[in-house]
Amino acid sequence: MNIADYMEGLGQRARAASRTMLRASTDDKNRALLAIAEVLDARRPSILEENQRDLEAGRSQGLDAALLDRLELNDARIDGMIEGLRQVAALPDPCGEISDMKFMPSGIQVGKKRVPLGVIGIIYESRPNVTIDAASLCLKSGNATILRGGKEAIHSNQAIARCIEEGLAKTGLPAHAVQVVETVDREAVGALITMTEYVDVVVPRGGKGLIERISRDARVSVIKHLDGICHVYIDEHADARKAHAIALNSKTHRYGVCNAMETLLVHRAIANDVLPALAAAYAEKGVELRGCEATRAILPDISAANDEDWDTEYLAPILAVRVVDSFDEAVTHINTHSSQHTDAIVTESFSLAQRFLTEVDSSSVMINASTRFADGFEYGLGAEIGISTDKIHARGPVGLEGLTSQKWIVLGDGHIRQ
Amino acid sequence: MNIADYMEGLGQRARAASRTMLRASTDDKNRALLAIAEVLDARRPSILEENQRDLEAGRSQGLDAALLDRLELNDARIDGMIEGLRQVAALPDPCGEISDMKFMPSGIQVGKKRVPLGVIGIIYESRPNVTIDAASLCLKSGNATILRGGKEAIHSNQAIARCIEEGLAKTGLPAHAVQVVETVDREAVGALITMTEYVDVVVPRGGKGLIERISRDARVSVIKHLDGICHVYIDEHADARKAHAIALNSKTHRYGVCNAMETLLVHRAIANDVLPALAAAYAEKGVELRGCEATRAILPDISAANDEDWDTEYLAPILAVRVVDSFDEAVTHINTHSSQHTDAIVTESFSLAQRFLTEVDSSSVMINASTRFADGFEYGLGAEIGISTDKIHARGPVGLEGLTSQKWIVLGDGHIRQ
Repeated sequence: MNIADYMEGLGQRARAASRTMLRASTDDKNRALLAIAEVLDARRPSILEENQRDLEAGRSQGLDAALLDRLELNDARIDGMIEGLRQVAALPDPCGEISDMKFMPSGIQVGKKRVPLGVIGIIYESRPNVTIDAASLCLKSGNATILRGGKEAIHSNQAIARCIEEGLAKTGLPAHAVQVVETVDREAVGALITMTEYVDVVVPRGGKGLIERISRDARVSVIKHLDGICHVYIDEHADARKAHAIALNSKTHRYGVCNAMETLLVHRAIANDVLPALAAAYAEKGVELRGCEATRAILPDISAANDEDWDTEYLAPILAVRVVDSFDEAVTHINTHSSQHTDAIVTESFSLAQRFLTEVDSSSVMINASTRFADGFEYGLGAEIGISTDKIHARGPVGLEGLTSQKWIVLGDGHIRQ
Repeated sequence: MNIADYMEGLGQRARAASRTMLRASTDDKNRALLAIAEVLDARRPSILEENQRDLEAGRSQGLDAALLDRLELNDARIDGMIEGLRQVAALPDPCGEISDMKFMPSGIQVGKKRVPLGVIGIIYESRPNVTIDAASLCLKSGNATILRGGKEAIHSNQAIARCIEEGLAKTGLPAHAVQVVETVDREAVGALITMTEYVDVVVPRGGKGLIERISRDARVSVIKHLDGICHVYIDEHADARKAHAIALNSKTHRYGVCNAMETLLVHRAIANDVLPALAAAYAEKGVELRGCEATRAILPDISAANDEDWDTEYLAPILAVRVVDSFDEAVTHINTHSSQHTDAIVTESFSLAQRFLTEVDSSSVMINASTRFADGFEYGLGAEIGISTDKIHARGPVGLEGLTSQKWIVLGDGHIRQ
């Protein structure tokens, strides 16, 4: 197979399908999502069989347990995929909304209409459920999709792709609205992220290495999420009880997630009041603390943090702790070391809360709340395709609206420019 | 001078200035804009003197008349720059707006706040007035800016840069909020568009060659405008009088602009009624017509259009004309050949007007109005940094809001995730 030609063919069909998708009604899209759910349910045996092939190949190649776990499908996970499709069908359609219509002095009426982006490429690692997650969000937002999953999941993904195809065929939507890349050749990824004629945006989902590589080589726009180095700053005006609860929850609710706190900043004036109790609570949960000198003066048993710690996303029960002398020092630390994902302050001071909202340059900025709330579901988006740490287009949790754009519409009655 | 180090320094200072700009009040920003206007007014002699140096060098290098004209400054053009600064000062501040605040079931309040993008790089050709235009829009939207103008305008731009510096120094804004690159070395552009750590977005302004080169090599996000291949489609249900006015205005109001019509599509059923009169009107204006076979059956004297014509942005008194058999054929032609800038239909049919709005995938879609209205001022934006033909982030005319982003804000009272 000539990969370049193959990908060009996928791209052309996706572009053509995206034009037809512009006319798809909300009802068409919802019926397609529910039809795919039904087919998935009916085809469980063949999906599980194909998944078994991937798992066996993975075991014989010596994949580690975590990867094999992500690769594995079972009835509960297929139930999850079906439930996800139904939830996306139940969400409001982001497309078609017309806003800001105004008459201009020239007499024309100008406003904006929300429309699909067009063709979205999704590149992800070996988690077959992402195939359905991503396809359903792109379909609901009126886009055509090209999906490229990890090579270890190739048989599972093909089986799911056939279900999607069968579901689409039961409705009026174009058969190529969702296409799954059938080759594991890496050249296919290179083609996908550079076909500016056929692909409008690429969403990479996976480890930092994958995302960095794609961002570097892509010529198509990328909606990406790199690290989550999130901070909680306990201000001198903090309520100690709220501070304790938020600092504990932000770190220990889950460790391997991007919205977990990685560095705790504490104002010197309150450090003695909050750090000992917090250290005890972290110790109980098995969290290792690494502190600056001032922190270690209060908690002599913990190890020293080095410069690297302030820039590390541990994704593990490890926490860097720093005592700061002022609000400004905290904000400077955050704007220097944060990955601009999510940062929170605990304070009762109205003015400092306002300043934190203004001066911290991150995609989610929180007052007196756990960083763990940075999530599409918690923000009421219904679902998310990822969390963007970019500043342009969608920022923070990206839901259906992040997969759309707005075009200008102009209504006249024979108006010409003077 | 080591260019890489020099640009890194500019980048670091811009990033630091962008943090300070986050706290700048609307009043601070407006006072800075007016202060710069005053300095420009006071420094006219030295600006014109430096501009003279550029013009002399340009003449001795044999620059063509059009380029020399764009390069030239005179009192009227300086007046224009001063007036532009005052207009931007009078526009509403896009930053700080909080929207969509909602209580979530968890008890947190979630919403969005409009904020500056951060650091914006502007790369433009040898038109010194762009230095002020771009700087004023970036300043008003709370961003730090690095400006890189064409090498032919280097002395003019340095003189303007000193005015900006002097104006900023009279206010509380950071001195490095606006920096003008002082070297003509091309390597500086390469650095600017790849410094992802210091630059958030790049806006190239100039010819297609410049923009293609920058889009290809940039690792920073680019807000770009490539071609303007705009269409007017005269539907069979068009009002012939409106069709005549719109088709004439879209082509002949100005020729060298991106929102001028380059291809006219006419439904077969109405072609005999509208084409002869239009052809006569175009002939009077000196517009050359190039038609498809069916067009030439009605207008036998015009030359034949070839395949290339449908994909050409003439920017000149030349117009390609094609007769189509149906609405669908017109939409397919547009979605295939349009540069997704601006496309218009002339029709009295409500349903076809609605379908045109839905199915034409361009940044501005118009009903019964001239394509010449696609413009930041005509859309009520007050000013524009450019017209984007991209789909993500800002689409179509980009005003102050297109130079901002939205961050999520979360307000709690000690809320933690369950």
